[in-house]
Amino acid sequence: MNSLASSEQLTVKGLPISPGLAKGVILRIHQRPFQQTGAPQVNSEYDKQRFREAQEKAIEQLKALADSTKATLGPEKAAIFDAHQLMIQDPMLVDAILAAIMQGQCLEDAVVEATLSIKAQFDALDDPYFKERAADILDIGQRLFRIITGGEDISQIDDKQDYVIVTDELAPSDAAVLGIKRNVKGVVTAQGGPTSHSAILLKALEIPAVSGIPMDDSFQRGNTILVDGVGGEVILFPSREVEEAFDRRIKAQEETRLRLKELKGKPSVTKDGISVLLFGNIASPKDTQKVLNFGGTGVGLFRTEFLFMGRSDSPSEEEQFQAYSEALKSMAPHPVIIRTLDAGGDKDVPYIKGLVGEEANPFLGLRAIRICMEYREIFMTQLRALARASAFGNLKIMLPMVTSLWEIRTARAMLAEAVLSVKDAGHKVAENIDLGIMIEVPAAAASAHVLAKEVDFFSVGTNDLVQYTLAVDRQNPRLLQWYEPFHPAVIALLENTARAAHEANIELGMCGEMAGDPLALPLLVALGFHELSMSAPRIPWIQDYLMRLTKDRCLELFQKVRSMDSGSSIREELTRFMEEHQG
Amino acid sequence: MNSLASSEQLTVKGLPISPGLAKGVILRIHQRPFQQTGAPQVNSEYDKQRFREAQEKAIEQLKALADSTKATLGPEKAAIFDAHQLMIQDPMLVDAILAAIMQGQCLEDAVVEATLSIKAQFDALDDPYFKERAADILDIGQRLFRIITGGEDISQIDDKQDYVIVTDELAPSDAAVLGIKRNVKGVVTAQGGPTSHSAILLKALEIPAVSGIPMDDSFQRGNTILVDGVGGEVILFPSREVEEAFDRRIKAQEETRLRLKELKGKPSVTKDGISVLLFGNIASPKDTQKVLNFGGTGVGLFRTEFLFMGRSDSPSEEEQFQAYSEALKSMAPHPVIIRTLDAGGDKDVPYIKGLVGEEANPFLGLRAIRICMEYREIFMTQLRALARASAFGNLKIMLPMVTSLWEIRTARAMLAEAVLSVKDAGHKVAENIDLGIMIEVPAAAASAHVLAKEVDFFSVGTNDLVQYTLAVDRQNPRLLQWYEPFHPAVIALLENTARAAHEANIELGMCGEMAGDPLALPLLVALGFHELSMSAPRIPWIQDYLMRLTKDRCLELFQKVRSMDSGSSIREELTRFMEEHQG
Repeated sequence: MNSLASSEQLTVKGLPISPGLAKGVILRIHQRPFQQTGAPQVNSEYDKQRFREAQEKAIEQLKALADSTKATLGPEKAAIFDAHQLMIQDPMLVDAILAAIMQGQCLEDAVVEATLSIKAQFDALDDPYFKERAADILDIGQRLFRIITGGEDISQIDDKQDYVIVTDELAPSDAAVLGIKRNVKGVVTAQGGPTSHSAILLKALEIPAVSGIPMDDSFQRGNTILVDGVGGEVILFPSREVEEAFDRRIKAQEETRLRLKELKGKPSVTKDGISVLLFGNIASPKDTQKVLNFGGTGVGLFRTEFLFMGRSDSPSEEEQFQAYSEALKSMAPHPVIIRTLDAGGDKDVPYIKGLVGEEANPFLGLRAIRICMEYREIFMTQLRALARASAFGNLKIMLPMVTSLWEIRTARAMLAEAVLSVKDAGHKVAENIDLGIMIEVPAAAASAHVLAKEVDFFSVGTNDLVQYTLAVDRQNPRLLQWYEPFHPAVIALLENTARAAHEANIELGMCGEMAGDPLALPLLVALGFHELSMSAPRIPWIQDYLMRLTKDRCLELFQKVRSMDSGSSIREELTRFMEEHQG
Repeated sequence: MNSLASSEQLTVKGLPISPGLAKGVILRIHQRPFQQTGAPQVNSEYDKQRFREAQEKAIEQLKALADSTKATLGPEKAAIFDAHQLMIQDPMLVDAILAAIMQGQCLEDAVVEATLSIKAQFDALDDPYFKERAADILDIGQRLFRIITGGEDISQIDDKQDYVIVTDELAPSDAAVLGIKRNVKGVVTAQGGPTSHSAILLKALEIPAVSGIPMDDSFQRGNTILVDGVGGEVILFPSREVEEAFDRRIKAQEETRLRLKELKGKPSVTKDGISVLLFGNIASPKDTQKVLNFGGTGVGLFRTEFLFMGRSDSPSEEEQFQAYSEALKSMAPHPVIIRTLDAGGDKDVPYIKGLVGEEANPFLGLRAIRICMEYREIFMTQLRALARASAFGNLKIMLPMVTSLWEIRTARAMLAEAVLSVKDAGHKVAENIDLGIMIEVPAAAASAHVLAKEVDFFSVGTNDLVQYTLAVDRQNPRLLQWYEPFHPAVIALLENTARAAHEANIELGMCGEMAGDPLALPLLVALGFHELSMSAPRIPWIQDYLMRLTKDRCLELFQKVRSMDSGSSIREELTRFMEEHQG
């Protein structure tokens, strides 16, 4: 038995960012900042040799990554790793590193200097193609740096036991890799909020995660850690009793998961018969199967920007048509709400970035519908593909980031033009295509009565709505205490939006993170939301809670909540309400 | 007479960004992008000689700048130009440029490469001190670049005739220089919105300006240009009749300016006797004189961050006390609303930037009250200085960027602590210090009923409120058509804020650009604003219009406006209303 003081049980509170319980052995991913230290060089020959070894190891890693990616995501997505293998052997980089070593820098600093200097040269060319190369060279430099500083590469994890990743911050690319590592059971990070891209991916992968955990030496590789992604805490050095109790909760979680499976096919209604449609969010046509598996009866958000990512030009009308019609066919007769291009902001679509240019505040910049208004040929191609796809299922089109009527009117006129022109070309088009908008900018929520008159539906995007209403970048790790989805102002804007939708008699949905958060559910029932769209695995959990609710109690709760003066008191009230409705 | 086709009169429409009429000779400031062109080198010896000449010229410019700055703004502000004279001779920079020339690059490219590479090295150190040095080196490189590419330096303008500056975009540092160049009569730019820092400076300097003007060869140096900063247009090659008519309008403008001077001292009330206090915005104690000169009866916004700029640490309590008490004394018995530190966002306070770090979206980041909550020692020093200054006049304290009650409660508790502690130290403190908040985040406007209960006053900051409500960075030149202060949602949020203030019986003010915009005035009268604070020269213009209004007509107008569905139709209605109330 371990006699160190560190073996005393230690509970650390953080922020729940992906629900569920997990247990595993700590795998700590060190992320030393990628910067020069000015540490002295010991021996230039030794550093050159270390560089050669690191280079070989990097090539091995990249080969393995290319192979596994080919197998899971296809050769197109794997091409980048082949390219990196070549770039890591390119004399431009290699010579720069060796030269810096010969000038007396230690290997770590030499890699940083060479990388940043080549990157700066690419950046200075101010051209979309070279911007991508600048990102590539940074990626490669960081890989080398990680290897020589002993950092672990998440893609190299063995499958010998169950792991919990512990790291400062999880990059979305790391989170994506976890999808193919079934033995990573949980994630613990120091930084990153509940609506970061990594958190959204972790939820979709059903990997429990807690953020906001200050790291210290207690988080040693090899120690067992318990992760509670609901309560938002982690336990280190658990006592035997605590660990056994936790094991029982994990078992109960698995049983609930099984029980929830049986909800599939049952109507998603409150106890008193109010129906709320539960839909899934998807990023590619393949994801529709997962939505159906979890009992979703439609797609409330198809994020089309994923079609546009990782390429140097727009996907063609034909390519887009294939993707949209595939999704529509596989969901028919259920509806699929396809959101038009939502590039810009934090969405990294390199050639669109090239059009938009550098912005001081991308979240307040040229993004989403604004790009479509400025670059109409991109928008028209998408609308034509959508018009053609409409013949194959139940299509609704949704515009992101709308603030004013003129955007809706322009989009509607362009859609009419697209429909006419594809019909002229001999394609079939659905009789009617609903056109709706996201309510995700405060301007739209506060003037919902104006916008409701000219659209067929609203879908509230809570992530952006909360971010803009509070003026808090939801991905800024230093602002976690300011990011409060249950802020009274958000409740007021939701109420205003709901009232406008009901007065205009249009459909009211939601597709932000709040739609999959059980705490919010009774408020959304009270406000008369017709449809909630979420990460597919959340559907049975929400359905389970929905079936315990009654509209009257929800309305009563809402009246209470709307008179409260802080997000934290509202959150407490909602938690109490949920506890009353358990079991 | 000029017989070229270009001599035909040409009117170009743009955006009015600073009101008034101006006439002058075009001075075109070329701003070639600071990037490498890959142009071939002709002769390395020639390029070395050109470099030496450019270096000498730069030193001359910097000397002249240091001298004129010393004379106008004092030696502290001039120190930077002395430092730049040394840096431009530093071997680190000089050798890098010469080396690049020897490697076959043309001088222009050599300067860009050397500058960016040194800058990257400084940046990589990730230290506030070196970040500032990185900015300095960029400034120096750009000066050299401007000299060798034939661009004009705004600080070198002669005073032989009246000029109108024509440029792609005016940097705030350039706009500041115009304050000492009395013969620059107007500014015409391709980019930059009405609430950019440059626009705010130009308004304060009373220099008419129009933005959004596409540049072509018609804008030749030496041609006469007419600038209409009210209608937002410029006229090139005016016919004799048009130029004479314009001269008459300029004369009338001067006469109005004289007439408006006579308004000073008269009560600022509507025709039917509703009083609206007209205050001035200031950035330093010296500016109070200007406010009084223009008839302002208080300061509605003292931007204290200017005390924090251009230094490597916080100003001391004593320093702050001096500045605050000086402003209070010179305005007494009129009130001075001092805003606590509003750093972060786009406000460049280097050592605070060092605390905050790089942010993806600074406008949605750690700024203003958030910095004060995170770094309480900075806030406490300011509160102590304010408490001490309160004995010398009529002080009100205003918190920026508030979204929630906890921020107000924390600030109030800290203020109480500051008051106690300075009293203990033997200082006098005012009996009562009002504590109010800016309403500039949609969350605050939409939950104004919650916040009104715990503050003494509201002051609406329209620049940020509009920016966040519309999710439009007001400084992003590509989003001008999305930035609409009269958006129906903004009107709705103003109404909500006003209602909450009146219900809680607290003072309601405004200190954003909208407060000085005559178009908005009747709406603000209708909403019962008690106080409007603006750039001092705007005060008589607003007072003049105010004295023609009646509350009834304003209320009638407001009812009409709130049912309108777009910013442009609201703006038209307000223009019509203003025209009806002329003369």
